[in-house]
Amino acid sequence: MKKLENGSVHLELDEVMPMAVDSLKRAGCDDENAQAVASCIYEAERHGAHSHGLFRMPGYLASLKSGKVNGKASPKISTSKPSVLSVDSDGGYAPLAHKKLAKPLADMAKAQGVGVAALTNTFHFAALWQETEMLANEGVVGLACTAFKPALPPAGGSKPLYGTNPVAFSWPREDKEPLTFDQASAVMARGEVMIAAREGHTLPEGVGIDENGNPTTDPNEILKGALLPYGGYKGASIAMMVELLAASLIGEQLSFEAAAQDNNDGGPPRGGEFILALDPTNGLASAEGLFAKMLEQEGTRLPGDGRRAKRSKVLAEGVQIPVDLYEKIAS
Amino acid sequence: MKKLENGSVHLELDEVMPMAVDSLKRAGCDDENAQAVASCIYEAERHGAHSHGLFRMPGYLASLKSGKVNGKASPKISTSKPSVLSVDSDGGYAPLAHKKLAKPLADMAKAQGVGVAALTNTFHFAALWQETEMLANEGVVGLACTAFKPALPPAGGSKPLYGTNPVAFSWPREDKEPLTFDQASAVMARGEVMIAAREGHTLPEGVGIDENGNPTTDPNEILKGALLPYGGYKGASIAMMVELLAASLIGEQLSFEAAAQDNNDGGPPRGGEFILALDPTNGLASAEGLFAKMLEQEGTRLPGDGRRAKRSKVLAEGVQIPVDLYEKIAS
Repeated sequence: MKKLENGSVHLELDEVMPMAVDSLKRAGCDDENAQAVASCIYEAERHGAHSHGLFRMPGYLASLKSGKVNGKASPKISTSKPSVLSVDSDGGYAPLAHKKLAKPLADMAKAQGVGVAALTNTFHFAALWQETEMLANEGVVGLACTAFKPALPPAGGSKPLYGTNPVAFSWPREDKEPLTFDQASAVMARGEVMIAAREGHTLPEGVGIDENGNPTTDPNEILKGALLPYGGYKGASIAMMVELLAASLIGEQLSFEAAAQDNNDGGPPRGGEFILALDPTNGLASAEGLFAKMLEQEGTRLPGDGRRAKRSKVLAEGVQIPVDLYEKIAS
Repeated sequence: MKKLENGSVHLELDEVMPMAVDSLKRAGCDDENAQAVASCIYEAERHGAHSHGLFRMPGYLASLKSGKVNGKASPKISTSKPSVLSVDSDGGYAPLAHKKLAKPLADMAKAQGVGVAALTNTFHFAALWQETEMLANEGVVGLACTAFKPALPPAGGSKPLYGTNPVAFSWPREDKEPLTFDQASAVMARGEVMIAAREGHTLPEGVGIDENGNPTTDPNEILKGALLPYGGYKGASIAMMVELLAASLIGEQLSFEAAAQDNNDGGPPRGGEFILALDPTNGLASAEGLFAKMLEQEGTRLPGDGRRAKRSKVLAEGVQIPVDLYEKIAS
């Protein structure tokens, strides 16, 4: 740790995990939960995904301190139907549940051909690609989605109803890291809009509307108004589907219900996650043929590789965070 | 049937189905296959979805005449894993396979919690919403996707690689028709671009690029170049996922492989379809809560209702098709 003249704090990458673990434990997490959450924060920072890194720590800490989240949660996993794993996260953060469900869900998908994990009673505040990559590392295709609080209007409307509702997908590869995409149903993830607001940047047109439904490039106005879905009504359909799968289908709160019940402590609201796993055993060679064709075209790369390309820079240069963020985590 | 002065032919809606059945049988379909395909064409016309209606008949007829498609196909269904239905379409059109798989797939989803139908050795030329609505009418959630021939470039590229790769989703409702969306991964479905080309319309910017990768509004140039995915790289991710699910995962041809093998008779190439069914029993009330919130906002409607609103007009006014299209079907 080193304070810089620009008012930021510099951290070596290997300082991130112990600092996050220590901070989470002091706020009430047991070791197992602290390790699982901190690992997500570390992995986000390691891949240059700062909006899901240490930037999230104040939200985690606030939701522990308010008593909303159970820092000592012990997820309970049961097979509710032959191809459905019911995972009660015990009021804790999602990462520990992910660690516990990845192997049984992958085994279920291999045996049954397909498996669904219905993750309920959880608090999801991390990047989704981590759980789909856990599944891919177990040899199966992973698809995950989760709702949050209203941020996006339905098609034709102007008031937030759907969460930014990301969808992540990972495809396993032999001897290579999985192909992975993780994309919000919004043009821009809420975390990125929050960072722009914090840093005082304006945003491109089309990212959001103000509280009167008018286009704006001011991230603060967008945070009071609504984000817009990517691709117009088509992205809104995806966001709607995520509400239905990650809330209605599995018996959890829709985004608008989660917001109504949340204590607004700055952490995530209670919600659910829909995770699908598929056995791709006979399709791996075909997929490699597709990937080769993608890479034949100039300007392309495989989804996930852009994020991974940031690792060496982050490892060499470390991480910079604002001093007030550092103090919130360290205090 | 009535010839109009504008060079079109007017048909009553109830003339569509027998005309299509008769034409398909004369071209080599048995009654069961002809009824299944004609039913899709009728349903498309009934909902004002002309790009999937009689407009597709020349493609169906050409692919029967060339011998590419088996008009007397008898789909074979087996349970390859406890939650996977393997459906070999026997080289026929997809609609007969859909009719045969809907009930067993819904039963599988109810028993197992989730089921996948892996539809292979098939020729898909119809709107996807019909099969997901069949599933919803059996009481389960349906999600379907299929590849075709290259039309969309991968993210960062400029040459077609992915099909327009539609995704359809239906959610069942008690005493109401299902909520359904069916959307191409392209900004605009290829069928609509073909209609614009036929009718001499230009298209909005952002729909496609010419064969040199430059933006164009000319549908003929776009058909030679590439369609663009909705929402930029995010829509490209969806199109890529469809290739992986509807081809690699289930053991069928990717779009570029299908194009290489196709005889270009104007009909669809051989391909596959991925169909997912989920048991939503405990989520129906929650979903109705979401739908009510959507409709509270001015300017919204539920996906699928726009299409259904066209029925009464089509029923009253019938269907108009160009005389040359009529002659191809009737001759």
